[in-house]
Amino acid sequence: MIVALSGGIGGAKLALGLSKILPPEELLIVANTGDDFEHSGLAICPDIDTLTYTLAGLDNPVLGWGRRDESWAFMETFAQLGGEDWFRLGDRDLALHVLRTHRLRQGEALSSITDDIRRRLGIGPRILPMSDDPVRTRIRSDEGWIDFQDWFVRRRAAPVVRAVEFAGAGSARPQAEVLAALRARPRAVMICPSNPFISIEPILAIPGMREAIAACGAPVVAVSPIIAGQAVKGPTAKMFAELGMAPSASAVAARYGALLSGFVMEEGDDAAGITPRVFRARTLMRGLEDKLALARAVLAAADALR
Amino acid sequence: MIVALSGGIGGAKLALGLSKILPPEELLIVANTGDDFEHSGLAICPDIDTLTYTLAGLDNPVLGWGRRDESWAFMETFAQLGGEDWFRLGDRDLALHVLRTHRLRQGEALSSITDDIRRRLGIGPRILPMSDDPVRTRIRSDEGWIDFQDWFVRRRAAPVVRAVEFAGAGSARPQAEVLAALRARPRAVMICPSNPFISIEPILAIPGMREAIAACGAPVVAVSPIIAGQAVKGPTAKMFAELGMAPSASAVAARYGALLSGFVMEEGDDAAGITPRVFRARTLMRGLEDKLALARAVLAAADALR
Repeated sequence: MIVALSGGIGGAKLALGLSKILPPEELLIVANTGDDFEHSGLAICPDIDTLTYTLAGLDNPVLGWGRRDESWAFMETFAQLGGEDWFRLGDRDLALHVLRTHRLRQGEALSSITDDIRRRLGIGPRILPMSDDPVRTRIRSDEGWIDFQDWFVRRRAAPVVRAVEFAGAGSARPQAEVLAALRARPRAVMICPSNPFISIEPILAIPGMREAIAACGAPVVAVSPIIAGQAVKGPTAKMFAELGMAPSASAVAARYGALLSGFVMEEGDDAAGITPRVFRARTLMRGLEDKLALARAVLAAADALR
Repeated sequence: MIVALSGGIGGAKLALGLSKILPPEELLIVANTGDDFEHSGLAICPDIDTLTYTLAGLDNPVLGWGRRDESWAFMETFAQLGGEDWFRLGDRDLALHVLRTHRLRQGEALSSITDDIRRRLGIGPRILPMSDDPVRTRIRSDEGWIDFQDWFVRRRAAPVVRAVEFAGAGSARPQAEVLAALRARPRAVMICPSNPFISIEPILAIPGMREAIAACGAPVVAVSPIIAGQAVKGPTAKMFAELGMAPSASAVAARYGALLSGFVMEEGDDAAGITPRVFRARTLMRGLEDKLALARAVLAAADALR
């Protein structure tokens, strides 16, 4: 079993690559839920949804979020009626949010709902939230504490980041099936090329999760989301700088510290000072071929470490 | 002030006619909420919405419910994900349900939300729910008790009706502004051409409502929803028959009993045995002209009774 920790877009690209190579029962994707929030009464899980849509081939390649072939009649009308429109919900995307919200309110676990939707959309590998208990990432900025989506979407990640916290993480229970997979000596743990601060560290903040990964006896391989000092997408590089670290692959490796046994980074980037074994690959994923190639490279790295 | 009691389609047509004739501050529309229900976690108020869309000129003339220029991307996707699709929610219509549900959950009264939406859509007269407390119409059928929308939409009103009850009506508080309007000696109370059993009687079942109407000192004029023994739309005639009454205008008048001082019915229909004063009009409303003409006729009838 490969246990892959993932945030949204970048992580989902590698997860898609892995899903095309591995038998479905040999891949377990652990999704960050720190980005989750309730918007106009709807339970929104951005990273779960990006993973789900990407693995189902339903992702929107133009927007980089939401569903392809989307329409916006709901959103337009919602705004006309006075509803909030800073977080855009497409007509098709909305179906998932309404269904999930209803089922959560009826008492069903997020993992159960996520798994049912995965199967309905024909996705082979399991996608599991890191926890069924709510964890909410909050940003301490130069303007004070801001809820994650307020900072990320409404404020376009503009306020300067001073610290990040994961409200609720301390009392959240790790997803039992993830712990079971880690106990069963997986082939490897992959840390996908996601933002360490807001996509991977919320997962590691769940009590017992970091310890279970460290104790699982398998190689733990991270892929750098920073290439040539830049993030492929999103605020990763900005956050490194604002938190006092030069954005670089080595800063990513340092952030994960002793948890890593291997680190996959772009050809040509500076590997000086990186402690885990370094593997070189083309980490920028444009088309499906890039995703498959990187997935193969990461699997080869993990197997070389066994 | 004209106080008009209304259900959905037929009532909304007369309400539209009245709204085109009367200054907005002289018309108060009291909407039945016995049809309301929670569907996949969304608070749906079919009669309020039909009134709102009709008076805003947004009603769907093809379907007879919902909004015009509607699209169905949400519904299609919702069904694909396993959501219930027997009650169809259009993409634009959904905006109202999501907004209302959210605001209700935040503790706002249904009357306040309904009034805000009315103003945003440029509707002059007020539309008020009969009560802000939930009342739920249930049908005792030959198959047992069925929730109203289950019977009406999912079962297409097929099960034979034995009785109707309004769960929650006994403890629901009448809408204070409706009582105030009735106390302020209105020009008339209109009972729109709606189904007596499921559109008007829920309003009259709210404690104090029937008494306030009877005591208001103004003419109370009903318009027959039955023309030549047939309902223009919906199960009204079927319900009369199943409840043991021949469907006719006189059966409608008898149903309202001593509450009425006037009764508006189709030219040529049998008025034998009708106790309140009978007024004749063309009660079938096709275009706007029909609605205006009937509104004028009903107002003239009321004024003749003063």
